[in-house]
Amino acid sequence: MAIQTPGIPKGTRDFSSEIISKRNYIFETIKFVYQKFGYSPLETPAFENLSTLTGKYGEEGDKLLFKILNSGDFLKEVSPEELSQRNINKLAGIVCEKGLRYDLTVPFARYVVQNQNQIIFPFKRYQIQPVWRADRPQKGRYREFYQCDADIIGSDSLINELEIVQMIDMVFAKLDMSVNIKINNRKILAGIAERIGYPEKLTDITVAIDKIDKIGLDKVYEELMQKGIEENSVKLLEPILNLSGKITEKIQCLEKFIGETEIGTQGIAEIQKLFNYINNFTFKNNIELDLTLARGLNYYTGAIFEVTSNDMLMGSVCGGGRYDNLTGIFGLEGVSGVGISFGADRIFDVMENTGKFPKNTNISVKAMFVNFGEKEEMYCLKILQKLRENSIDAEIYPDIVKMKKQMKYANDKKIPFVILAGENEIAENKVTLKNMIEGNQDKVSLEELIMTLK
Amino acid sequence: MAIQTPGIPKGTRDFSSEIISKRNYIFETIKFVYQKFGYSPLETPAFENLSTLTGKYGEEGDKLLFKILNSGDFLKEVSPEELSQRNINKLAGIVCEKGLRYDLTVPFARYVVQNQNQIIFPFKRYQIQPVWRADRPQKGRYREFYQCDADIIGSDSLINELEIVQMIDMVFAKLDMSVNIKINNRKILAGIAERIGYPEKLTDITVAIDKIDKIGLDKVYEELMQKGIEENSVKLLEPILNLSGKITEKIQCLEKFIGETEIGTQGIAEIQKLFNYINNFTFKNNIELDLTLARGLNYYTGAIFEVTSNDMLMGSVCGGGRYDNLTGIFGLEGVSGVGISFGADRIFDVMENTGKFPKNTNISVKAMFVNFGEKEEMYCLKILQKLRENSIDAEIYPDIVKMKKQMKYANDKKIPFVILAGENEIAENKVTLKNMIEGNQDKVSLEELIMTLK
Repeated sequence: MAIQTPGIPKGTRDFSSEIISKRNYIFETIKFVYQKFGYSPLETPAFENLSTLTGKYGEEGDKLLFKILNSGDFLKEVSPEELSQRNINKLAGIVCEKGLRYDLTVPFARYVVQNQNQIIFPFKRYQIQPVWRADRPQKGRYREFYQCDADIIGSDSLINELEIVQMIDMVFAKLDMSVNIKINNRKILAGIAERIGYPEKLTDITVAIDKIDKIGLDKVYEELMQKGIEENSVKLLEPILNLSGKITEKIQCLEKFIGETEIGTQGIAEIQKLFNYINNFTFKNNIELDLTLARGLNYYTGAIFEVTSNDMLMGSVCGGGRYDNLTGIFGLEGVSGVGISFGADRIFDVMENTGKFPKNTNISVKAMFVNFGEKEEMYCLKILQKLRENSIDAEIYPDIVKMKKQMKYANDKKIPFVILAGENEIAENKVTLKNMIEGNQDKVSLEELIMTLK
Repeated sequence: MAIQTPGIPKGTRDFSSEIISKRNYIFETIKFVYQKFGYSPLETPAFENLSTLTGKYGEEGDKLLFKILNSGDFLKEVSPEELSQRNINKLAGIVCEKGLRYDLTVPFARYVVQNQNQIIFPFKRYQIQPVWRADRPQKGRYREFYQCDADIIGSDSLINELEIVQMIDMVFAKLDMSVNIKINNRKILAGIAERIGYPEKLTDITVAIDKIDKIGLDKVYEELMQKGIEENSVKLLEPILNLSGKITEKIQCLEKFIGETEIGTQGIAEIQKLFNYINNFTFKNNIELDLTLARGLNYYTGAIFEVTSNDMLMGSVCGGGRYDNLTGIFGLEGVSGVGISFGADRIFDVMENTGKFPKNTNISVKAMFVNFGEKEEMYCLKILQKLRENSIDAEIYPDIVKMKKQMKYANDKKIPFVILAGENEIAENKVTLKNMIEGNQDKVSLEELIMTLK
């Protein structure tokens, strides 16, 4: 066989021990908080039937699905005519029946519908697994990355929204990250669009509002007019675009503006109630109503959440919202849910760049025995076993090679202690314990050794 | 969109909370032991370049690789002639550049070669990740399953083999499973084949020896002769086939039989040394030299390990061995390694069938607050936060529905305590705590509540 230069597919990553420890620190924190709030874990297969995935992420999303070639004669069902037509999309649909998970939401919806008779509603699940997208790889964007989702399905209560805010606050407090938690409500946006006479232009209006900080008021007006909204209607938006102050002031202003639309009134009531809940608690992070928040607008029907880091300029590190009909596509109607997703890769980048990882996340053994030779080896192996029985992670250098090489190994692996046992130590039933950080060394008994390493 | 009946691809599984807790119990035990012995985690991408995977698992293995269709115009490079020829294997190689991970060994070898200048040798890594095989699904065989591997690469020392036996013993002791740890050595098998004059028939001989318990001595003789080994040579095997007794007796017998072959002498020396190490320690499980062990014979070059359950008849629950040239296929020669892999699915089945899982693996909250209405809700939410601050996982039923429905939820989710707070409790600044297992209930203060739940 020809010798190959090994590499990995673009957009994917190997994770070494040090990175895994740090990533696990993030995953474990999120898991800990999810479980504290009564969310239970779920895991779904890496691939789903393509019929489950296709059409759920829009046309662009469909293109980004990784499809798995059918086993055996994958052209069996393809006629010569179909083959020569080279209709890529059609052919892909015949030669592939499965696709890699694109997100955790659709598999969750599929799971809920498939198991609706066994599931206890309201169903609170969290899921921390990788997803795959055939996106063009670039800085911070990968073809394989983890999502960390929690959703509750089958409950309309705004207590769920409160607890989502509490979970977000707790996760970032535990990670020692300062964030801004922004909340919006799709119904308020719908009320605004209705109030200015363009209910069907909800998305255009929100996209434009979203750009105010970047392009300024005049350009926003211009963009809205280009989208076909009359100048009079555009001007009506002014109080919304200038909305500021405390939450009570914002709500008052909204009541004046959209209080007469039914959907707007519903949205205001929801926001009012949610902030009433929120105001009964103290949070480590700032929470604000942000009407420019348009995240996942084709999808969310009530509350919308987005979290940004105050430590570093970057896209959102967490987001989510309420959806009223997630499971409808699979035939289960009328089940409302609300969920969030933490972006582990972005959180990692922020923590790495701002030095927020604790020093002790690295997984290395506490001590390494130097291997002097066959005679000394067994003496060390017996003590090594005692250490392990005493919950101390430790290893022996397996080969009898020059001490310098063995010390380099311990040093490179950042092992804090090295244990040496030669003729003298064995005669005294002791070992020499060398502290690799401070450089000093001591002859100690087995009891002293265990005490020091524990 | 038409409504779909949701399902998952055959051979895959969803894992619910209860199963995940049990599986994690196995994974965490294995991880704990690996780390105790100085192995560090590695994670590789779900898919590799097909050039990395193809040709590494034999012709059968190649057929079982899940291939990922190239994005975009996957037929771009295919000429009309190639298309009309319908050469499935050739076409698959053009329209697919990536494949799902088939095991953890080849990605590990690829990683080592790719990062050989950064890696500290001897390199001890463990890897616990899913792999995918397009095998025909059947009871206990899945298309997506986890492997739990540990390997040390770049060390010839038999201390590594000792520690592998120690790790196996510790894992199963911790899991409360009784197992039989069988050890063999490829060099001894090669010595036997050479001694009877058929060095090239090593595999046939071992496969036949392997069947002794099932088909008996005469049938084994018959099979060997069918494979083209002369009767005289076959009869020479008798002392090997009847090998029994203590390890020292077995080794003596082997010395007589294959002591004159060079490879056999090497194998005996290795086994002798390994059992010298082993005899210096006590183990919870039986360890034996088993010459019928032929696992992965095309692959292993020294020690071979296999572990079977004593509690339940089943294939091996763990296996491994030493290989001298794993990384050669990727251009790094002369690096010897030894590794093992635990079969988490089989271990799960044994533990489930013999009731070995601890009772407390299930992840559920400790307590649920009943939601009586808007007035009582906030009182409960405040106490709920106090519980969570005191490390108690707890939840509130989010919706204001009939108490019966709420109690059913707590009951179905096996939540051990339910907390009720109505007008009376609020007036007294207390709650009623109901023990769902014993059925009794008490009015308690917040301090008493925390004390009971902790």
